[in-house]
Amino acid sequence: MTDSTKQVFDTVALVGLGLIGSSLARAIREYGLARHIVACVRPGPTADKVRELDLADEVSENLAEGVRDADLVILCTPVGTFGKLAKDMGPHLKKGAIVSDVGSVKAKMIEDVAPHLPEGVHLIPAHPVAGTEESGPEAGFAKLFDKRWCILTPPEGADPAALEQVSAFWEGCGSDVEIMDAAHHDLVLAITSHVPHLIAYNIVGTARHLETVTDKEVIKYSAGGFRDFTRIAASDPTMWRDVFLANKDAVLEMLGRFTEDLTALQRAIRYGDGDALFDLFSHTRAIRRQIIDAGQETARPDFGRQNNKNGSSKAEER
Amino acid sequence: MTDSTKQVFDTVALVGLGLIGSSLARAIREYGLARHIVACVRPGPTADKVRELDLADEVSENLAEGVRDADLVILCTPVGTFGKLAKDMGPHLKKGAIVSDVGSVKAKMIEDVAPHLPEGVHLIPAHPVAGTEESGPEAGFAKLFDKRWCILTPPEGADPAALEQVSAFWEGCGSDVEIMDAAHHDLVLAITSHVPHLIAYNIVGTARHLETVTDKEVIKYSAGGFRDFTRIAASDPTMWRDVFLANKDAVLEMLGRFTEDLTALQRAIRYGDGDALFDLFSHTRAIRRQIIDAGQETARPDFGRQNNKNGSSKAEER
Repeated sequence: MTDSTKQVFDTVALVGLGLIGSSLARAIREYGLARHIVACVRPGPTADKVRELDLADEVSENLAEGVRDADLVILCTPVGTFGKLAKDMGPHLKKGAIVSDVGSVKAKMIEDVAPHLPEGVHLIPAHPVAGTEESGPEAGFAKLFDKRWCILTPPEGADPAALEQVSAFWEGCGSDVEIMDAAHHDLVLAITSHVPHLIAYNIVGTARHLETVTDKEVIKYSAGGFRDFTRIAASDPTMWRDVFLANKDAVLEMLGRFTEDLTALQRAIRYGDGDALFDLFSHTRAIRRQIIDAGQETARPDFGRQNNKNGSSKAEER
Repeated sequence: MTDSTKQVFDTVALVGLGLIGSSLARAIREYGLARHIVACVRPGPTADKVRELDLADEVSENLAEGVRDADLVILCTPVGTFGKLAKDMGPHLKKGAIVSDVGSVKAKMIEDVAPHLPEGVHLIPAHPVAGTEESGPEAGFAKLFDKRWCILTPPEGADPAALEQVSAFWEGCGSDVEIMDAAHHDLVLAITSHVPHLIAYNIVGTARHLETVTDKEVIKYSAGGFRDFTRIAASDPTMWRDVFLANKDAVLEMLGRFTEDLTALQRAIRYGDGDALFDLFSHTRAIRRQIIDAGQETARPDFGRQNNKNGSSKAEER
């Protein structure tokens, strides 16, 4: 199955095998990107599941041992764990190894991890902009990264060869690689991902605590728009808690703008300013068209859900 | 094609043939719910399209003539037009006719329409909780209402036989019918549909006006969550302007709660209160599960978009 022309690393250690880590394990195997995969997991149900699904060549419940021979170590745990993991594994990394991650926040990753890496170990942070609302090793799949962007945020002075290898690795997963500054990454993701998640979590929370409308009614009539928000509000709570704490400044900045704009809309509604509403509403359609044209979204109406003229109800699992 | 056992009305006049009106025309034909369909449209491209697609038995560009013989008249235009339409058609309605609609706001519908209806004409407002982000007669399809809720909000003292007929009509379209008070409907929909649309429109607007992040970056990295919001922010601007103006009080009430909750979350982020974030985030997953169990949403991760382990990329149109 392995196509040796695509192999980028000898040994890759994945720390944490949730949705992203387990998808990476599958992608590495399917595309032959490494000779040997070590899954570093804590003892418990995830470790059992990783063994059961045979996701790695080696399962290590000891971080120091698991990373010792790795040419690439990828942290696939919530960003809040990075500092401690780096501290624990730092002394055991081999010279020339590359440390990377899949976290959604990059400045804090560098701040937490860099101080613990010995000389001769390279730090190349990465963020694959991909995922689903599901979690755990059974939720992963090899094609998760296919045609999605992966953003690399090498710190100043990063080793060009290491950067090149990590790029080749993600391209091998099917991703398009982009390189940018960590601080800018954090601003971009605050508006394209973090604030959307926050407001989705928030409206689902608001809907749960009304006296005048029951939970049952919210569920029943959710097809009017609400259900779209529940998808991302079903994402992993630990991961997202860590994202907001780690990207505090950028999230607060974007949230401040969101609230300012929402207050203006609220005022337009209160004073019956239909032109202001129409003006905003007629400009937002264009951006969806551009996202579809950029290959980042499906053009099928209603995401191609059932009941849809282009959706197949047979493909649905209800 | 017509199954005469399902016929509920002799003549149905549809006023406006956008996504919903044209879907109704198709459903009436496919399920044999009426003998004769009149499409009441203004002269112009919609009228031409309705003729080209052969959506109705008769296309009338004169409202008075179009509704004259109708047993059921359904207003399928934006809610802001209802008052004028009712005034214009009122004198021409036949005795015993039923006037209904498909609007997303119900108290204002009754307020605007009821005064213009002559004695002997019945008012049975309806709201099918179904739709897509697309608009126009070519976007409709017969199965749009299948397994979706249709809420009827008969005013006090409404004719029971008329209510029964309108229920049978929507059941014939495949919908599950629910009856509730107009004011309560408007509160329920404010949280399940109107506020979600408003915040989706708002964040797409916020993202377009940043100095630090370009539109191109927003589009490129939208798979992190943002793109989900663009779907409903691509909905028809006129329809939605009218919804917010017509359901002002309920929308402002729900929006006030949303903002209050969001401010608390913002504060939790600012002060690093991870427990408060985790607590909210871990309770929101359950509601999605219930929506899926209630048959109102697909269980496929990521709405079954491409790149997904359960999604078929062959079914995608890119």
